[in-house]
Order: sequence, then structure tokens, then C-alpha cells
Amino acid sequence: MPERTAASRLRLSGLCFLLQILNILLFAVFVRYSPESSPGQCPPQLNCSWRNQDSGFQQPRFQDVHIQVLLSFGLVVTFLSRYGPGNVAISILIIAFAIQWAVLIQGFFYSFLNGKIYVAAQSMVSADFCTAAVLISTGAVLGRTNPVQLLLLALLEVTLCTLNEYILLSLMGVSDSGRSLTVHTFGAYFGLMVSRVLYQPDKDKRKRKERQHMGHQTDVFAVVGTIYLWIFWPSFTSATTVHDNAKNWAVLNTYFSLVASTIATFILSPVLYEESTPRMVQIQDATLAGMAVMGMAGDMLVTPFGALIAGFLVGLISPLGFRFFMPVLHSRLKIQDTCGVHNVHGLPGILGALLGTLLTLTATADTFGDRLELVFPLVAPGSRTVTDQALIQLGALPLTLLLAMLGGCLTGAVLKTKALRCSSDEQYTENTVFWEV
Amino acid sequence: MPERTAASRLRLSGLCFLLQILNILLFAVFVRYSPESSPGQCPPQLNCSWRNQDSGFQQPRFQDVHIQVLLSFGLVVTFLSRYGPGNVAISILIIAFAIQWAVLIQGFFYSFLNGKIYVAAQSMVSADFCTAAVLISTGAVLGRTNPVQLLLLALLEVTLCTLNEYILLSLMGVSDSGRSLTVHTFGAYFGLMVSRVLYQPDKDKRKRKERQHMGHQTDVFAVVGTIYLWIFWPSFTSATTVHDNAKNWAVLNTYFSLVASTIATFILSPVLYEESTPRMVQIQDATLAGMAVMGMAGDMLVTPFGALIAGFLVGLISPLGFRFFMPVLHSRLKIQDTCGVHNVHGLPGILGALLGTLLTLTATADTFGDRLELVFPLVAPGSRTVTDQALIQLGALPLTLLLAMLGGCLTGAVLKTKALRCSSDEQYTENTVFWEV
Amino acid sequence: MPERTAASRLRLSGLCFLLQILNILLFAVFVRYSPESSPGQCPPQLNCSWRNQDSGFQQPRFQDVHIQVLLSFGLVVTFLSRYGPGNVAISILIIAFAIQWAVLIQGFFYSFLNGKIYVAAQSMVSADFCTAAVLISTGAVLGRTNPVQLLLLALLEVTLCTLNEYILLSLMGVSDSGRSLTVHTFGAYFGLMVSRVLYQPDKDKRKRKERQHMGHQTDVFAVVGTIYLWIFWPSFTSATTVHDNAKNWAVLNTYFSLVASTIATFILSPVLYEESTPRMVQIQDATLAGMAVMGMAGDMLVTPFGALIAGFLVGLISPLGFRFFMPVLHSRLKIQDTCGVHNVHGLPGILGALLGTLLTLTATADTFGDRLELVFPLVAPGSRTVTDQALIQLGALPLTLLLAMLGGCLTGAVLKTKALRCSSDEQYTENTVFWEV
Repeated sequence: MPERTAASRLRLSGLCFLLQILNILLFAVFVRYSPESSPGQCPPQLNCSWRNQDSGFQQPRFQDVHIQVLLSFGLVVTFLSRYGPGNVAISILIIAFAIQWAVLIQGFFYSFLNGKIYVAAQSMVSADFCTAAVLISTGAVLGRTNPVQLLLLALLEVTLCTLNEYILLSLMGVSDSGRSLTVHTFGAYFGLMVSRVLYQPDKDKRKRKERQHMGHQTDVFAVVGTIYLWIFWPSFTSATTVHDNAKNWAVLNTYFSLVASTIATFILSPVLYEESTPRMVQIQDATLAGMAVMGMAGDMLVTPFGALIAGFLVGLISPLGFRFFMPVLHSRLKIQDTCGVHNVHGLPGILGALLGTLLTLTATADTFGDRLELVFPLVAPGSRTVTDQALIQLGALPLTLLLAMLGGCLTGAVLKTKALRCSSDEQYTENTVFWEV
Repeated sequence: MPERTAASRLRLSGLCFLLQILNILLFAVFVRYSPESSPGQCPPQLNCSWRNQDSGFQQPRFQDVHIQVLLSFGLVVTFLSRYGPGNVAISILIIAFAIQWAVLIQGFFYSFLNGKIYVAAQSMVSADFCTAAVLISTGAVLGRTNPVQLLLLALLEVTLCTLNEYILLSLMGVSDSGRSLTVHTFGAYFGLMVSRVLYQPDKDKRKRKERQHMGHQTDVFAVVGTIYLWIFWPSFTSATTVHDNAKNWAVLNTYFSLVASTIATFILSPVLYEESTPRMVQIQDATLAGMAVMGMAGDMLVTPFGALIAGFLVGLISPLGFRFFMPVLHSRLKIQDTCGVHNVHGLPGILGALLGTLLTLTATADTFGDRLELVFPLVAPGSRTVTDQALIQLGALPLTLLLAMLGGCLTGAVLKTKALRCSSDEQYTENTVFWEV
Repeated sequence: MPERTAASRLRLSGLCFLLQILNILLFAVFVRYSPESSPGQCPPQLNCSWRNQDSGFQQPRFQDVHIQVLLSFGLVVTFLSRYGPGNVAISILIIAFAIQWAVLIQGFFYSFLNGKIYVAAQSMVSADFCTAAVLISTGAVLGRTNPVQLLLLALLEVTLCTLNEYILLSLMGVSDSGRSLTVHTFGAYFGLMVSRVLYQPDKDKRKRKERQHMGHQTDVFAVVGTIYLWIFWPSFTSATTVHDNAKNWAVLNTYFSLVASTIATFILSPVLYEESTPRMVQIQDATLAGMAVMGMAGDMLVTPFGALIAGFLVGLISPLGFRFFMPVLHSRLKIQDTCGVHNVHGLPGILGALLGTLLTLTATADTFGDRLELVFPLVAPGSRTVTDQALIQLGALPLTLLLAMLGGCLTGAVLKTKALRCSSDEQYTENTVFWEV
């Protein structure tokens, strides 16, 4: 069936062309560089509401931001160790498209003024957070979708993820600077629902065999991925915290959390599996989980041992999820989870949100000092009580889960349409053959 | 022929020794640390002309500079995926020698005063830009030259590249902050001319076969190389822009350009080759091309969609060059281009220079605002009209091509001398055998 | 013997659990975040002696610190190329444990006040320096110890290393900003003594064979490791220098030193071995040695050619050590040195200390200018003569060697106890089998 294969190749090519032309046109009509590049130059008509919302009182130094933009690549390296280089090209395509699309969509929500979107360095960071959510979802369905489906998934998820973020951060005033909810939880459950809708039982066995036989290279990528995460992630977690003061604590908390989570893996892995030391992918998963749990709580924890305990617990829960919950997920709920995003992003994200709620309850001017104003800008001046804030933080969790699952169902339904699914078989196979040999 | 092999081994060893002793002596006589380490401490006798020329009004923070110094390593990683680890050791030798040599030569041109060269952090960045041009040239002749030849190539090219840079930036006042002309175009055409002079038809077939059979590892390195470029290159492009204001735009433009260029590869690759997704090396090439085109224009573009369009076009042209122009280059012009530097650095560099000329024409105080003074320091105070500046920017292109080609011919002729060429056969073979097994 | 294997697995698991619980408890009781997060906010009761000691007049920007924290990972990548991924998991476990433990121990020495330890960003950097010393020691005994032994080694070495650092830096007022003595020399000789005590002749042959047959992957990791070191290490060397002024010179000196050291490898390697170009691991070793020698002298050298000469000499000595001294070390002194830490850290560290002493003698207000106060805070105000300072710098060397060797003997004796050694055989073997296949 060479004609059909050629057709499916050109389908991807054509879709890329259309989407890129669309992006260029929308950018030409709407997007301009923000004139407020240097601090203190906010023109009056811009009102700077978006700036105060997201980037706080002072513009971050660009050099820092620019390294943080590549958050998504950490996830790509991570997936390499789970699924091999087979889908890296596709992941980079998705990053390249989703970043542009997220700049547009986020611009419409946050910085749309007089018919123009004003972008600055911070826009790229926000866009990359959104792209990270898309990649997390991709991790759940990798290997069972074709590139055309993944591009459409990115198109839809960026929109819904931004909507969720807008409701949480801007309308409800939730404090979630490291994005436990809006990135980790949303991305994981969105992807899991898409995976559920696309479930095809027969493909499963072949896939798992393929994953097994790429033994050694997996470890190499897992080493690179783990080091990448240790070096760059703590600054991602704190990318949007508003002040150096709060930032320092967010980074330190994240470090302590991932250190404890790594050791937890060494405790549990010999018990769960018959191995003396955990494999590198397990250490990598522990690193990711330890970071996801610090997303919301990172700048709320005022003592280092809190971060140690949280990281330790999530480092115990994540391997338990892989061992006991993933088979249940697969056999009972018919959800396949290629990269185990539920254990690495979903559960830790929920735990992080619950921890954040708990910490919000205990936040007082005494323990937080000047940081109270930075972490909870509505509580400090008295326009909201601590209990209200905690209830809102708690309410954001089911809301995010609801939006993620509804969005995942919707997206899955779109991706399941005959036209898209049909070409999936041959194209996916061809793709695999091309890369694995 | 063990004696001849031993002789050729010792020849490299001896040349390294001589060059390093020469470097140490020249450093001992001429090079001192600049006393002006902190901003505002420029001693009157130094005149600070070089500082204002290159590093602008404010000294960059050293931490930033220090990461940017490793630009060359990005190219090394890139070549790994094209040619394998066989020549990495040699590339690192060339970096180590060229950086010292470039500090000396650039010092004589820019900061020679009272018989001393004063070096500072910024000197290392300039030296590394020069080294990057050498590595680009190396990419054209890799695999057909021995280490002794490559060291001599570095010796000559650093000198000529600095001469070209001095004429363009200091004498003519060309604005080329991301070095579209002085690094990308110069390096590519210099290397291509050396390759032309060294052309040996019989070696070709064997070489190409060797490149073919290193399938999987290539992809691994291409992934690492692409991620390295995405993370670090945008800050290279803006390493010498004079002010944070202009810098921000240069980085954002570079991001947008490489994003669009990556998507263009996904559009064209299925059409040109019978593959559903491009290979990682192609994505890497698109990334490089998208960055090279933003070299000159990066801080002149005032709207994001301009960067999207430029990146998109160069992302289409570069694969077309690989498919249709490289065979012509080889068969008609007898130029072998091992790593395809013409498509990845040469053409995008020229396009970037043309785009920069076009943008210079449209530069007005209205569109540029404060940035006019930073990007075109001679236009802002009125000592030069916009049209004059544009003509000078345009004139810099043929001048660079001329200097690069003359220099390449000269260098090629030197490298072709019997004494050097003779040892090439056995040493190169030995080198290959050592690494590939 | 499945029961014994299971028992040894659970032994590691249990030890991790105990140590982590211990860490959490100690953190809960003692460790608090320092209130002095922003410069100038030092509360009077804290006295800020630790701050002035280690981080100087101004708090470093956190972003910089946070990248420097991952010093240890550079060493992990380095070991990968010497010993393969077999022990990476263990190395990461040691990093995760040693960082927490070092925060505690260093806190007791430096910032213990009113029963609390106050940690800040700088604490993590100090803790990571300590962890680096542990990893260097690990490099000497890797492959002949089990994880339980390595954890206990980390427990003891962190304590002794901090004691040595406290005596040198705080009590004696030695200037060792890049830690030639306290990290490189201490770590190397500590590890060598442990290796001597644990010497077991029969294991040697099998091990060496295993190292031989992992040809290609070794080179890949060596490339990655070398690039990592070039990018990140120069800023480690200067992590604790007190002022941007001094820092710039430390970074530049380190660059020049590693450049010259790399070229020296290309000179000597063809003479010592019958290879035309050195292997990547040799280049990596040269890079490490060139950096270790600049540890103490980095911010004392006032001319670039001094760094070139020092790097050049150490780049010649290190391969000579591998070729001629390591076999003597093994056969005569019965010291096995798995990763050659003596040539890469031990010797260069001693040479760096001697160079530092020499440079201290020549330090005058004329040559150093404002930097005198920063590099030698006791000499500048006249409370100590230059000769005194030089004697103290020199005396620090035998003291460090003594402490390292005594500590190594002690630790080796503890690790040799039957209970620990017994499980070594099976667990180590199992570990190897698991990874190498």
C-alpha cells in the first residue's frame, strides 16, 4: 500500500504547513513585542495587569528566563529513557508548534489589548509551561498515536490548559507558582483520559515487547535525563515566583524534596523488585515526582524538613503506584500509560496540591514575614482570610481534574475519528521501523 | 610502515609542543589581565574603544559570558552526529589551540596598547566566536584532513577571520551582533574553498560508506546536539548585543526563528525523502540554519512574525540545498562538504545578511525607539543616513565572501604541500581504525 | 544463596531508611532557613561570621549558585566514562545522602547558633563541595565496595572533610577558594588510603578485564563529561571567591589552565602510547587536572601566562602518573586506584597548593591592587605578613595529607569489618551482572 503510506506522509507535511502559515498570519495580525522590556517602563495604557499577574514586581533577568524556557526538553530527555529515540522527532515538532500556539492563546487570555498581544521574555516561559503540560499528556499516549493526532492534541490541550490556568490563577487567585495543578495534574489526567478513549487492546502486547529489548541505551538516556532535571528543574519550579526571597526557598525546598525522594526509591525498590539497586529510570521517576510535589508548596514551606518529609513520602508512593496501581489502571480501567505519567506527575501533583492547601491554613504573618505578601497577595492586605484562601486552593484541585478529564474525553473523541485513526496503523508502524533499525 | 606511522604521530606531538610554547611565550610577553574588570573603571589611557565597540556600554555579567564561551562545543556535538566521535579529540585540540591564538590575534587588533594586550571576560567570548568560525570550516573538510593540517588551518583562519571582523565591525561600522557574516558565512565559504583545493576524487566513496553504517549512535548525538543548541545558542546570538533591551529581542527573535525553521523541516522532509518524519540530524540542521539567519537581523527585527517568516523560509531552503545543491557542488564544482556547512551556515548566513540589509533600510527612530542608538550607533546621532548604513551592510557581504574564498584558497594551497599531504593517508586511516572499532 | 542475596538487598534498603529518618529528625530539630536571604539583612545575633567567611561581602545571585550546586554531577559523568553506568545509581544515592549530611555537619561547624542551623543558598554550595570530595574518594574504590560500605564512607568522610575545611579555612585562615586542598587533595588521599586498607589481590584481574571490553560507550560518556566540565567547572572554581573582580580572574585562569593542559595531553599521549591522538578519557583527565591545579592559585595568578604554564605542566605530569606511577602504586604500595584519582585530583591538588604558596610569597599591594584584600583578608590590613601567610598556606598541605590519610585508614578499618565485607562479594557481583548485561 505505497500510495496510502505516501498519502499519510503528505498529510503530516500538509498539516504542518497549514498550521505554520496559520501561526504566521495570527502573529502578523496580533503579536507585537512588548515595549516594557526594562523594569519601570510600563506604559499606562497597558495597565500591566498581566505583568503583575505573572512575573511579579520585577522583570526577571532574561538570561535566567531563557534557560528556563527549555523545561520541555527535560521531559523529552526523560521520555527518551522510557520509550527510546523513536518519538523524539515528533516531540520536538510538538514543542515547536505548541510554543507558538501557546504564545497566541495565552496572549489572548492575559495580554490582549487594543487588538494586539504584547509578548516579552516572560511570555516564552508561560508558553513553555503550557508546552510541558502537552508533553506530559503525550507521555501517556506515546507509541499509540500518529504525529497528526499528536499535533491536534497539542492544538486542543494548549487551549484548555490555558483556560484552566486562567480560571485558577487569575479568577480564583490560587497560588500555584510551580504549577503542581496547572501543569502536572492537568497534563497527566488529560493524557490518561485521551489514552482511555483511544484504547485498543490488541496493540498492547507488541508494544511492551519492543520496550523491553532496548536495554542499555535506556540507561544512558536516563542518566542524562536525571542530571538534566537536577541541574535545571529547581529553577523551573521557581520561574514564576515573584521575588528573589520567595524564589530562594522554592529552589531549596525543591532540592531537599528531590534528594529525599531519590533515597526513598533506594529503600523501596529492593523490596518491590528483586534488584539490589534501582534502575536509572526509577531514579529519574523519583526525581520527577519529588519535583512535582513541590510545585505548589515550594514557596510555602518555611522549614527544610517539611520538604524532606514531602519528598520522602512521594518517593515511596510513586514506585508503589508503578508496581500496584498501573496494572489495575490497565486491566480494570483500560487506561494504558506509556511513560507512567500518573505515578510521576498525576499523583505527586495531587499530593502537592493537598500539601499546599494544608500549608495555606497555617500561613500567618509570623511564620511567613514579608513573604506572605509575595505568596498570597490577597491574604496579606486582608482582603481574604487564610481559611478562604485554603478552601480556594482545595477547590482548585477537583476543578482541574474535572477540566482535564472532560478535555481529555473531548480530545480523545476528536482523535478517534476514522480519518485520523485509519492512517495511524501504517504510519506508526513505518515510523517505528524507520527508527528502531 | 611502522616507522612512518611513528613519525607522523611524533609530528603532531611536536607541532603541538611548538605551538603551545609559542603561545606561552607570546602570552608572557604581551598578554595581561585588563584592570577594567568592573564597569566604570576604564583607565583613561586604554581609551576603551574596544570595549565600546564590542561589549557596549555595560560589561556583561561574567557568569553569562562564561556559559557563552562554549559556543564551539555546540558545534562539536553537532559534528558528532554527522561524523561520529572519530574526530572529537581533534576538534577539542583545535578549540584549545584556537582559543589561545584568537585571544592573541584579536588582542593585537583590538586592545593592543603600550605593547600589551589587555584581556577580560569579553575577550574569551570574541575568541570563541573566532573558534566557532574555524570549527565551521573544519566541518567542511572533516575526514579528509589529518590533525597537523587542521592545526595549520586554525592558525591561518583565526588570523584571517579576525582581519575580516576588524574590517567589518571596526572600520566599516557594520552591525552584525550575532555574526551572520563574520562567523557563519566566513567560516562556511573558507572551509568550502579549502575543501575544493584539497579535492581528491578516489577517497570519496570509501568515506561515504563509513558514514552510512553508524546508524543509531548518530541519532543519540543529534538529540543531545539539538537540545544543546536550543538551550545555549539563543544567548550566543545575543552575546555581543549592547544592551539588555536589544538583547531580549535578539533572543526572542532567535527562538521564533528556530521554531519556525524546525517545523519547515517537517513539511519538506517527507516530500524530499520517502520518510514520514525527518531524521534527527535534519532537525538539528534546521535548528542551526534558523539560528544562523538571525545572526545579523536578530536585534533589528521589531515584530515576532518577521522572525517566524525568516526562520520558515530558511528552514525550507536548507533541506533543498542538501537535496539538490550538494550533489551539484560535489560533481560540478568538485567541492566535498562533509557536514553540509554550506546549507547550514553558508546559505543561511547570506540570507541573514540580506535580511539585515533590508531591515536597516526600514530602521527609523519611530520603529526602533531607544534601540536605534544601540543597534546602529552611527545612525542615531545622525553621522550616517539609514541608506548609507544599508549600503555598507550590503557591501560587507561580497567583501566577506571575497576574503573567505581568497583565504580558503591560500590555506588550501598551504595544506596541500607534499610534506603535509603525505602523512595524511596513513595517519588518517590509523585514526579512523582506532576510533571506529 | 538467594536468602543471603535478599538479606544484603534489604540491608541497603534498611540502612537508607534509617539514615533518611535520621536526617529528617536532625533537620526537624536543628535546621531552619536563614532569615538573611537578601544582602544587608544580617540579623545582629547571627554575627554573620560564616557569611563573611565563605560567601564574602555580597550574597551571590541564586541562579548562579544553583547551577554550581551540581558540581558533583560533573564527577559522576566523568566516572561514567571510566567505569560505565554500573555504579551511577550508587553515586546518585551517595550524592543524595551526602548533601543532606553535609548541610547538617557544616551547619554545626559554621552556622550553629542558639541551637539552630541556619541554611541558605550558599549552604548548598558548601555541601556540594563536600559531596565532591566524597565522590573523588569513591572514584578510588569504585568496583570493589558495596553500596552499604560506600554510604558509611560518605557518613565518615563528610565529617572529616568538614573538620579539615574548618581547621584550614576558619582557624588557620588559608586562602583556598577553589578547594585544591580541601576537596581535591583530601578526597584523593582519603580514597587511596581506604583503597589500601581494603586491598584484595585476587579481585584485580577480573575487574580490569571488565573495564576493557566497554569500548565505545566509554568514549561517548567521556565526550559528554568533558563538555560538561568545560561548561560548568570554571564557575565552580570561583564559586566561593569573594568578589566579582577576583572571580573573573579565577574563571579566566581556569580556562587558560585547562586549555594548556588539554594540549599537553596531545603532546605526551603519542609518545607514551602508540596512538596518534589521545583517547577521550585522557582528554577528560587532562581537563580535570588542569582545573584541580587552579583551585588555590586561581584567584592569585595575576598574569594569564602563569595559568598557561601551570596547566601545561600538570597536563604533562598527569599522563606520566598514569603511565609510570600507577603501576608502582599498585604493585609496591598495594593501592588500587579505579579511576586514577591520584593523577587527576591528588597530584594536581598538591601542585596547586605549592603554586599557591609560591604566589602568596609574591603577593604585594602593587601587583594585587584591590584584590589583595579579597584574596588575603588578613594580609591586607597588616595583621599578618606575606611570609606568614605563605608559611600557613604551605603548612596546610601536610596537615591535609595527614588528616586525609588518618581518616582514610580509620574509614577503611570500619568498612573492612566482617559484617560489611561479607555481603560485598555477592552483592557486588549481582550488581555488575544486572548492569552490564
